Amino acid sequence: MTALEQAMQHCRAEGIAFDRVRTNGIDMFYARKGGGFPLVLLHGWPEFWMVFRPILNTLASDFDVIVPDLRGCGDTGKAKAGPDGDAGAMTHAQDIKGLVDALGLEKFGLIGGDLGAYVAQAFAQTYPDRLAGLFFFCTPYPGLGKRYAQPDHLTEVWYQYFQQVPWAAELVGASRETCRTYISHFLNHWSDDNPAVFQDMIEIYTDNFMKNDNIQGGFDWYVSSAKNRQLWIEEALPQPPIIEAPTYFMWGKRDPLIRPEWSDKLGDYFSDFTIRFADAGHFVHAEIPDQASAEIRTFFDGI
Amino acid sequence: MTALEQAMQHCRAEGIAFDRVRTNGIDMFYARKGGGFPLVLLHGWPEFWMVFRPILNTLASDFDVIVPDLRGCGDTGKAKAGPDGDAGAMTHAQDIKGLVDALGLEKFGLIGGDLGAYVAQAFAQTYPDRLAGLFFFCTPYPGLGKRYAQPDHLTEVWYQYFQQVPWAAELVGASRETCRTYISHFLNHWSDDNPAVFQDMIEIYTDNFMKNDNIQGGFDWYVSSAKNRQLWIEEALPQPPIIEAPTYFMWGKRDPLIRPEWSDKLGDYFSDFTIRFADAGHFVHAEIPDQASAEIRTFFDGI
Repeated sequence: MTALEQAMQHCRAEGIAFDRVRTNGIDMFYARKGGGFPLVLLHGWPEFWMVFRPILNTLASDFDVIVPDLRGCGDTGKAKAGPDGDAGAMTHAQDIKGLVDALGLEKFGLIGGDLGAYVAQAFAQTYPDRLAGLFFFCTPYPGLGKRYAQPDHLTEVWYQYFQQVPWAAELVGASRETCRTYISHFLNHWSDDNPAVFQDMIEIYTDNFMKNDNIQGGFDWYVSSAKNRQLWIEEALPQPPIIEAPTYFMWGKRDPLIRPEWSDKLGDYFSDFTIRFADAGHFVHAEIPDQASAEIRTFFDGI
Repeated sequence: MTALEQAMQHCRAEGIAFDRVRTNGIDMFYARKGGGFPLVLLHGWPEFWMVFRPILNTLASDFDVIVPDLRGCGDTGKAKAGPDGDAGAMTHAQDIKGLVDALGLEKFGLIGGDLGAYVAQAFAQTYPDRLAGLFFFCTPYPGLGKRYAQPDHLTEVWYQYFQQVPWAAELVGASRETCRTYISHFLNHWSDDNPAVFQDMIEIYTDNFMKNDNIQGGFDWYVSSAKNRQLWIEEALPQPPIIEAPTYFMWGKRDPLIRPEWSDKLGDYFSDFTIRFADAGHFVHAEIPDQASAEIRTFFDGI
């Protein structure tokens, strides 16, 4: 049994249920636990639903918590590969629309970080009536602008370009060791360079990325979002609709990828938001899950 | 016998001699053939001396042609690794100073592309009295400025940042296949996306990079030049001394990495230069070696 299969057994023993829905042309896998007001949690890259396991278990006492694997990731279906592939933020948002429709969730809370934060913004701009509120970890948003690719930041964002080359997944997935080396870098570096955060998860993540073409599946997002990313960095992206849902940002004070000071333009994109800087790096939800759960609970209790 | 060893046998049969000199703390390997006015050719990354084999054989009829492996590359000694390592342009220039001193070359012509072009510029700025003239292929120079990392160019330059991470060589060198995949990308893409150019050289290059820690040896340049590269892209690099030696640029019209239109600021750094755009990509010397040899000959005959 792989480390991932073993972890899935433990998750089932914790009362987490797993199922699939057909949505937007793919089978979407999701974890679910609890009851009450529904919260949908959207993971980032290089993650899958399990990054939210601690938060899922904590919040299940008061909420109906649903955590899908996003398109291309985990046990969910793949995007069509290539530059005309369909793993962009709007496609992901439509995937989530199909999921919540299938589950009959009329109004719910949406929570996301990294890739999940792009998806949550696209969803909020397209289906605002469905949202009670939005909760973000360290959030990529167009207000980062050219700062996201400024000269002293290229050592952080090179992977967004490497992951577009057609042979990147072949290189990263050449062996279990190369996959582990690559994925570990991001898990550890983005966790405030603290390898203890994902220490017990490295083999599980490696299992995840070594199956189902998940390396390319994750990279498809970078291929599909390339044009948009370029316009954003050129500060030439058309202004999207302002997001009016109540929104909470829990932003890692030491996120090396999406620097906390770059949150200064949130007001151009969100009309009703609160921001709090947390004692963490990029993976707030994995680094300080208890505190993240508490802030999610307080925020959605207050709505 | 490896493809590289076999090629070296053929080179010896062609009359190319090989030797080493002690210079600047390392053993430098070089190829040499011919007699007459001395020309020193400096290769780039991911190359080694052999990229100049056709030009070396052609020019040897009238010149004393010397082609070293640069520090970290081929059969030359390695840089100290790490951010305080010593594989920057000035260290490389001092290596070349030691080489030409050891060979008793008082005045000579210097020819370079890519990394070799950085080295040749540092040499020309530091030891101008030694140079009869400079000949460049597609030249990285500070006048590229922020254009070198503009949003639509990040899909070209990501490797300069990836190659700084401490595990990059481990990933690329995980197997002969990963090494071939990685190196082939640059050889083919930069040759105007024409795989025929390096087709017969891929196994030889793979042999080269799989020995002597040559993957990390090449990456050491990117580690050592990182600070300088950042200042350059920030357009904050102090103005270097103007290069007054007669200089000729043979620039690939279709170089995807160092675009020909970015040659527009050469006048800020070179006081006496000619530029000609060639029907090639980045690897002018490998794509059209006969034409490159002819232009080198004409330029140095005229001096």
